[in-house]
Amino acid sequence: MSDDGRPRLGVGMVGHAFMGAAHSQAWRTAPRFFDLPLRTEMTAVAGRTTESARAAADRLGWLGSEASWKDLVARDDVDLVDICTPGDTHAEIAIAALEAGKHVLCEKPLANSVAEAQQMADAADAAVLRGVVAMVGFTYRRVPAVRLARQLVEEGRIGTVRHVRAQYLQDWLTDEESPLTWRLDKERAGSGALGDIGAHVVDLAQFVTGEQVTGVSGMLETFVAERPVASSSSGASPAGLGGVAGQGRGPVTVDDATAFLARMSGGGIAVFEATRFATGRKNAIRLEVDGSLGSLSFDFEDMNVLHLYDAQEPASTAGFRRIVVTEPEHPYVAHWWPAGHGLGYEHAFTHQVVDLVEALATGTQPAPTFRDGLVVQKVLAAVEESAADRSSWRDV
Amino acid sequence: MSDDGRPRLGVGMVGHAFMGAAHSQAWRTAPRFFDLPLRTEMTAVAGRTTESARAAADRLGWLGSEASWKDLVARDDVDLVDICTPGDTHAEIAIAALEAGKHVLCEKPLANSVAEAQQMADAADAAVLRGVVAMVGFTYRRVPAVRLARQLVEEGRIGTVRHVRAQYLQDWLTDEESPLTWRLDKERAGSGALGDIGAHVVDLAQFVTGEQVTGVSGMLETFVAERPVASSSSGASPAGLGGVAGQGRGPVTVDDATAFLARMSGGGIAVFEATRFATGRKNAIRLEVDGSLGSLSFDFEDMNVLHLYDAQEPASTAGFRRIVVTEPEHPYVAHWWPAGHGLGYEHAFTHQVVDLVEALATGTQPAPTFRDGLVVQKVLAAVEESAADRSSWRDV
Amino acid sequence: MSDDGRPRLGVGMVGHAFMGAAHSQAWRTAPRFFDLPLRTEMTAVAGRTTESARAAADRLGWLGSEASWKDLVARDDVDLVDICTPGDTHAEIAIAALEAGKHVLCEKPLANSVAEAQQMADAADAAVLRGVVAMVGFTYRRVPAVRLARQLVEEGRIGTVRHVRAQYLQDWLTDEESPLTWRLDKERAGSGALGDIGAHVVDLAQFVTGEQVTGVSGMLETFVAERPVASSSSGASPAGLGGVAGQGRGPVTVDDATAFLARMSGGGIAVFEATRFATGRKNAIRLEVDGSLGSLSFDFEDMNVLHLYDAQEPASTAGFRRIVVTEPEHPYVAHWWPAGHGLGYEHAFTHQVVDLVEALATGTQPAPTFRDGLVVQKVLAAVEESAADRSSWRDV
Amino acid sequence: MSDDGRPRLGVGMVGHAFMGAAHSQAWRTAPRFFDLPLRTEMTAVAGRTTESARAAADRLGWLGSEASWKDLVARDDVDLVDICTPGDTHAEIAIAALEAGKHVLCEKPLANSVAEAQQMADAADAAVLRGVVAMVGFTYRRVPAVRLARQLVEEGRIGTVRHVRAQYLQDWLTDEESPLTWRLDKERAGSGALGDIGAHVVDLAQFVTGEQVTGVSGMLETFVAERPVASSSSGASPAGLGGVAGQGRGPVTVDDATAFLARMSGGGIAVFEATRFATGRKNAIRLEVDGSLGSLSFDFEDMNVLHLYDAQEPASTAGFRRIVVTEPEHPYVAHWWPAGHGLGYEHAFTHQVVDLVEALATGTQPAPTFRDGLVVQKVLAAVEESAADRSSWRDV
Repeated sequence: MSDDGRPRLGVGMVGHAFMGAAHSQAWRTAPRFFDLPLRTEMTAVAGRTTESARAAADRLGWLGSEASWKDLVARDDVDLVDICTPGDTHAEIAIAALEAGKHVLCEKPLANSVAEAQQMADAADAAVLRGVVAMVGFTYRRVPAVRLARQLVEEGRIGTVRHVRAQYLQDWLTDEESPLTWRLDKERAGSGALGDIGAHVVDLAQFVTGEQVTGVSGMLETFVAERPVASSSSGASPAGLGGVAGQGRGPVTVDDATAFLARMSGGGIAVFEATRFATGRKNAIRLEVDGSLGSLSFDFEDMNVLHLYDAQEPASTAGFRRIVVTEPEHPYVAHWWPAGHGLGYEHAFTHQVVDLVEALATGTQPAPTFRDGLVVQKVLAAVEESAADRSSWRDV
Repeated sequence: MSDDGRPRLGVGMVGHAFMGAAHSQAWRTAPRFFDLPLRTEMTAVAGRTTESARAAADRLGWLGSEASWKDLVARDDVDLVDICTPGDTHAEIAIAALEAGKHVLCEKPLANSVAEAQQMADAADAAVLRGVVAMVGFTYRRVPAVRLARQLVEEGRIGTVRHVRAQYLQDWLTDEESPLTWRLDKERAGSGALGDIGAHVVDLAQFVTGEQVTGVSGMLETFVAERPVASSSSGASPAGLGGVAGQGRGPVTVDDATAFLARMSGGGIAVFEATRFATGRKNAIRLEVDGSLGSLSFDFEDMNVLHLYDAQEPASTAGFRRIVVTEPEHPYVAHWWPAGHGLGYEHAFTHQVVDLVEALATGTQPAPTFRDGLVVQKVLAAVEESAADRSSWRDV
Repeated sequence: MSDDGRPRLGVGMVGHAFMGAAHSQAWRTAPRFFDLPLRTEMTAVAGRTTESARAAADRLGWLGSEASWKDLVARDDVDLVDICTPGDTHAEIAIAALEAGKHVLCEKPLANSVAEAQQMADAADAAVLRGVVAMVGFTYRRVPAVRLARQLVEEGRIGTVRHVRAQYLQDWLTDEESPLTWRLDKERAGSGALGDIGAHVVDLAQFVTGEQVTGVSGMLETFVAERPVASSSSGASPAGLGGVAGQGRGPVTVDDATAFLARMSGGGIAVFEATRFATGRKNAIRLEVDGSLGSLSFDFEDMNVLHLYDAQEPASTAGFRRIVVTEPEHPYVAHWWPAGHGLGYEHAFTHQVVDLVEALATGTQPAPTFRDGLVVQKVLAAVEESAADRSSWRDV
Repeated sequence: MSDDGRPRLGVGMVGHAFMGAAHSQAWRTAPRFFDLPLRTEMTAVAGRTTESARAAADRLGWLGSEASWKDLVARDDVDLVDICTPGDTHAEIAIAALEAGKHVLCEKPLANSVAEAQQMADAADAAVLRGVVAMVGFTYRRVPAVRLARQLVEEGRIGTVRHVRAQYLQDWLTDEESPLTWRLDKERAGSGALGDIGAHVVDLAQFVTGEQVTGVSGMLETFVAERPVASSSSGASPAGLGGVAGQGRGPVTVDDATAFLARMSGGGIAVFEATRFATGRKNAIRLEVDGSLGSLSFDFEDMNVLHLYDAQEPASTAGFRRIVVTEPEHPYVAHWWPAGHGLGYEHAFTHQVVDLVEALATGTQPAPTFRDGLVVQKVLAAVEESAADRSSWRDV
């Protein structure tokens, strides 16, 4: 992109595994399909070593590289820090970046504990007074079908929310010989399915309904208590999900699965489930919302589709409509392809960049905020407390 | 049912294999769920031997039995003759019954040739002047979802019909060692997939659109030219579909599959396909109708569902609606179960009895008439002629 | 059916509303499609008045009628009493019938309380010593796709059960002006969605997995606390679901919806939901079971279909198979129609009759037993207790 | 990408509308996710004016721009010419590029006539002797689910092909007031639905089966003969599909829809349909292939899914498997995201670049060749001839 008079936004990214690849694709692609109000520059990426960072920069399209996130944060030509590392590092990096006057985009979960998340939200509140903004990456909000769902709820199309059914189903741990990775280590990951994928469906449910979870009753389960030690714990697979068995076995210290009941602030009830043991479900994020006037249904396995039931239609022709969310009238879609040409997983990351850059250019607060991330963290913590206390109710 | 003042309708059925079982279930069931204006009596069933007829009567719930259809037609206590035999016998029985003053319900296809069908339609026209009516059994018209489709077209919900896609897909001949049965013998069956199942989709397409096929270009194919001779050619299996291999091989003299292009009287174009080689499709009757204002889609594998697309909805919420056709507002449904409790294959036969009895009681002509059956026969004949002449166009 | 040497089984039915109609269709139909080892006779039906019973007998095909269930139970020509009345009457009738030496088929839920259910199970245990058997009508077990699911679990096809997701979703109370019926009255119905439909999914989950629910954490919700008083509380609509608004409003004393977490005896976790507020879902009984080797998925809205995922297939061709459960190889199906011709809601009742009669003829105990019904009742009671105590865990 | 020792491949693109945007995204993205054996450089894009070309270069990421395709072809630093213009310009540009020693990637349809396509194929044959290769852009071949379908047929998983059902359904002309664009002008577009989208399904059917269409019987239809003249005929909308009504009406000189029967070289029969009037279908490319041992089904509206029926499975568990084609074992997928994270429309263009670059690096002929494109063109021409001659059969 030529120097065309738009203000420049220098971006620095920390981490370059699965999430780093997705974020890089977004930074590369957003200016090609959207008219961004800022001239984004992929200034530098930080890794753990000079070599790994340089290789990542070359592969992912960053102009420079740094062997330490601190050096990245210190650079004058970096205006925004994009944090793509595991959750245990988020608080330190994000707070440092905000204090250094850098805008922050931080991957979810915001942190591995409520305490850290609280510090981050406080830091974000302080920063905003200085014109520095922070946003947490609940990317699925920006899948066009999810955004459309939100719009329909906002317009009152389904009335008062009675039921929420939200599931995030994966199956990559079904094999008992699948090795340990950092995602199964409480120190690194904070929790298992709960924080990694449960966080997403809590956010989605709150986002789509526009309501808050007010209390929960939960359970956690670890089906396979020990697993083979991976030969490398570095998350070297592209997705950071795999691993290769090494010597001996080690304990799984996080949950394999969680389920919890909840109440929503609007009076409805909700059921949540997140698991890595739903054999045959690879990345099934399923959300159903039943209201007094209609219902919505979404499944990420068919991500370009939203189902809408309108109870105000005559009974003889009422039915769940399969809306193929690829029309120019749909959120984000007009910038891509003609109707019927579906988008993929990574497009939501591009939309995230677009929304963030537009907020920065207009001086508005992008959502979800760190405080939104904190709210999710509190829900997850309440689930853990409830699960530890015979599933008894916990207000959030 | 007690003698309650309603006029009596004595029914005699000819044939007691697959179709005879379905019709019997309908005569038994209709008065239990619907308030019929006539008191139907299952007077007698005719078979080929005294023993087989008697056993069938006992099993299927008929009061009496006859070893010959002629004796059945001659009975004074039989007011209506229900013909469930193969197509090569339809003309003789139906014409005799009509001439004897009996109403006739005749299974499809009306006949094995246009000439026979013409004679039957003429006989029906003559009979109606004497107050005797005839109807052909295109039962799928009375599946609630199909009837609803017809209603929606009639109400103008999809506008001018542009496209019809109609397929009847089965796979019971995929196995090359599946033996010969009467259905593969041109003498008995008239044709193969074309007349047996193609007839259904031609009728369905015409019924739902309210239009006529005006011309065709067709092809026929017999994939497996010879098959093992069945040890019994009697269609002894419950469905009349099976058979057991005997000695030697014999020629298949009918088509395994057919496909044809067509034009509809309203200006639209149509594509038809009927086959017994669609591996994995057991009884998939699929009908799609695209109009200027909307579209309909039906698949008998999901028989309680009709899909409707309304192009007049805003683009952002338009989509195919999955109408579960089990509401009291839907055709026939109020007489059965609460919403959401689906019907099965044989319910359409019960609806056929209901519609027929109501027409008889009110002195109106039930549809489809023998002339409707003749029209279908002419379409099938045109397909055969076209197929024999390099697929060149044939007006119907 | 002629007197053909088979022993006679005289059946008396109590109640003739929605369930009575379904059971009657089963008694009428079973001997037409299945070779029953006993000659079933539909001896008499009992109602609340002479007139209503007589009219029901005529409409539903029963030879005689009684104005009191006690008279029915007292008849020498009644060998089996089929109880189709609301749950608050089950215990009295069933125990009396068993003590009178009559076999009993009792609709679900077995009773409105654990105490009553316990008495019934005890009575059944005592009766069996005298050769008298009892069975409870969890009919959905006999939908062919559900029976197939059970078979596949039994054969080890999905391995160790990790997850159960069971929902029974209806929407007939979504309209806040829908009137009060006996089903919303705790005195008559015992509970709301929990006992009426939640009972079904608890039984289905236990049946398909072959496991027991060992503990629960639950919540109950009544979204609409008051409703218009129906002009008639008699459940006069065919389904017993409807009603017509009368004067004033009255309290809803049962739950509109329930959700509960559970643990299964095999180590898996389960999530249950039952509601009458799932807008757009008419009778969606959904069951997903995820095991270590595979998964199953069923939805009654597509009742002839079972989805199976086999994790032992190569990853490149693994996928949920849509098994259309209409093959002769499938449970019950060979007695009906050819492959691809689906069954409907009421066929499961016919299968129930078939299984019961075969058990009676062979002197084996039919399942589900009253004790199975008691187990379900205990689960429901534990859910109520947990819900009343901040969702804290209750062992069953 | 740094200069890393890999040979350089300078790419020049002609045209920058819908297809140009898709190809640019592919050239930008391929080296980020795949290890390309050549160092691709987006050297220059050619447009019709200096300004439009320069703006396109900036927006789409090309280093330079040219106001004429001839200047682009003449550049020494361009090794490959990527042709994204309408079909009437393909022959001239492609032949000139090949003669100038440039490799060519040419969008489909190869040309607007058989004669032109023949010249292009001849030019490609001549060029290959000089080490210059040509490829035509039937991109849908590289959707992972389609590629998997091809693999399964090749492995014999579905046996002998009996049936092909191939449809390309769009609805953007349903509105009779939708204006004229170059796509409705025979001079520019060659044909309507037939060449634009029918070409795709002919190629897909031949690709997946590995067979040729040997003859056809076809029909063409123009439902709306006149349309409003667009204020701009330049295809200014991103997709080149839209347009804005100007003054007066003009004739539509191409087909709105086509349907044709065909025979395949392996003995099976096929039915093709392509239309812009299938209300509610936006870009539904549907392909069903039924073989003696199994069947496949694909719909681009659910592009990450392939359905496979394996007739060799036991009848009780046979069913169409819904293969979610997002596993590392699936074609192309390992380079993208973890299992369950679907791809979108444009990914197939990236795969096209990858396959082309790998062929160039290894000196092998990439497929589909210009001769493959010619074969498709001949099928389309045969359909037109048949349609003009009462649908009579035409061998290809």
